Amino acid sequence: MAAAAVHEPEVIRDKAAMRTWSRRRRAEGKAVALVPTMGFLHEGHLSLVSAAVAASAGPVAVVVSIYLNPSQFAPTEDLATYPSDFAGDLRKLAATGVVAAVFCPPDLYVRGSADGPSAAGVSGGVVSCLEDAGGHAHETWVRVERLEKGLCGSSRPVFFRGVATVVAKLFNVVEPDVAVFGKKDYQQWRIICRMVRDLDFAIQIVGSEIVREADGLAMSSRNVNLSHEDREKALSISRSLVDARTAALNGSNHSQQIKDQIVQTLTEAGGQVDYVEIVEQESLVPVERMDRPCVICVAAWFGKVRLIDNIEIQSTSSDR
Amino acid sequence: MAAAAVHEPEVIRDKAAMRTWSRRRRAEGKAVALVPTMGFLHEGHLSLVSAAVAASAGPVAVVVSIYLNPSQFAPTEDLATYPSDFAGDLRKLAATGVVAAVFCPPDLYVRGSADGPSAAGVSGGVVSCLEDAGGHAHETWVRVERLEKGLCGSSRPVFFRGVATVVAKLFNVVEPDVAVFGKKDYQQWRIICRMVRDLDFAIQIVGSEIVREADGLAMSSRNVNLSHEDREKALSISRSLVDARTAALNGSNHSQQIKDQIVQTLTEAGGQVDYVEIVEQESLVPVERMDRPCVICVAAWFGKVRLIDNIEIQSTSSDR
Repeated sequence: MAAAAVHEPEVIRDKAAMRTWSRRRRAEGKAVALVPTMGFLHEGHLSLVSAAVAASAGPVAVVVSIYLNPSQFAPTEDLATYPSDFAGDLRKLAATGVVAAVFCPPDLYVRGSADGPSAAGVSGGVVSCLEDAGGHAHETWVRVERLEKGLCGSSRPVFFRGVATVVAKLFNVVEPDVAVFGKKDYQQWRIICRMVRDLDFAIQIVGSEIVREADGLAMSSRNVNLSHEDREKALSISRSLVDARTAALNGSNHSQQIKDQIVQTLTEAGGQVDYVEIVEQESLVPVERMDRPCVICVAAWFGKVRLIDNIEIQSTSSDR
Repeated sequence: MAAAAVHEPEVIRDKAAMRTWSRRRRAEGKAVALVPTMGFLHEGHLSLVSAAVAASAGPVAVVVSIYLNPSQFAPTEDLATYPSDFAGDLRKLAATGVVAAVFCPPDLYVRGSADGPSAAGVSGGVVSCLEDAGGHAHETWVRVERLEKGLCGSSRPVFFRGVATVVAKLFNVVEPDVAVFGKKDYQQWRIICRMVRDLDFAIQIVGSEIVREADGLAMSSRNVNLSHEDREKALSISRSLVDARTAALNGSNHSQQIKDQIVQTLTEAGGQVDYVEIVEQESLVPVERMDRPCVICVAAWFGKVRLIDNIEIQSTSSDR
């Protein structure tokens, strides 16, 4: 019983308590590693936990945050249907044996009163699910202005503003030494790296590899919302990315050709393509030729679910 | 000699060295208090140092940062003529006997290379003296979107974006427990308070009262750029504010009347008014009647120098 209790994560709901906990761990000589999530955890998330442990040379206290962040959803998006299973999440995290605390605040934002001045929509018409709060509500936003454009930023204009802001808040509450992000959300990972660099957060950012189902589908909390049929069709994403990489490694480095092939594969499978882009890995600038380290990024709808995936290409055969 | 050496501030130019220094002081049980400045220090700045000491109940290590922040200046503004006197600043800080470190980084921003993708002007056309850097340069901005509008934000659209961003950076480098801002820059102080609240910085913000010359002129590093004649004319600012407060305390609480009177006084003295506004103290929302705690804010040009000043009014006679 005593040994099992050591692995049961402490559940912390309060910001001040979280910070106190974190500072205590550091005073004990431990690094604090944060894994931010929105819950409904799968093997992909658990791989982030492993990466958090691996990133620290010495003793580490791993904190997993579970918070469904309203400011990264537009009112038209799927905040209301985003899946959750807190009890299941806790069981999975306890089973890892290495998660010391779960931070699950009921809310992270200051909400306003309806009679106060409105902060809604002052950001060039950008409005998220947070911003009907009005009054003296939250009004501070962190924006990574170049990287937040393009890719997912084109069809989700509030998304990265909400992500960067909530991550900055989590960083200030948890005060981690290390934070781990999945490379499935490739643009998000690059944006967080840039924010940390530009705002001088004293935090090492770890990008963790995509975890896939046995059939190749990239793990996502949203996969549960796919019908059986759409899930089969969605396999075209990972299949087309692997084919593209094979083609690239065989010397086919014209981005447009590769993109056309992926769009055709996804469309024939019944998907509705949001974008297929080939960009430089760090700057996310589109490349015409894949003659340097780049990444192929895809977003496509299958049924009512928007899925994203990507594959990094370090070099093509013409480089070697 | 030994006693004097204790009071000589340590000069730190490197971010990592600054953070290490700060963490050592906290490990010694001291609070770290930050006074951010742009140098050319006067009695007003030194009063911020005193406020930093006063704000901490226990032992405190006071850090004064000196950094002329290019991102809060528009290319049309006075970055190039902003006065500086580093040796004099150091002498003044040493003479206080309570400043432990001076943080004076040569640069705080990552600059890009000209051949990289440009980050300039993506923020709705907002461009500061930083943004000709291009390339993989700094591109992350903190904006307090409602409070940054109005008052100085109207005529200086890049200003508060630059202030909030550089202060967030200084907070992440110095990791202070307390930070002190002068209430002369009233909107700036409120914006920093809001940023700290919204982004969950674990920092107590102290607003420190305006320090004035014997004749009433609010102390400012820019005062040195006033001609003798303009300096005389500029006394109309503090005089008109004191008169306005007297009028308000005597029951004259119509904002428009008070504002008209101030504009008239400044104009007759030869000033060019940028704005005269009466706003709520925390929300900075304009008030028609001064029937709650408010502040009268003024910006006006005298010669080539733009000066700001303000006066808080806690209650008018009609409240009592």
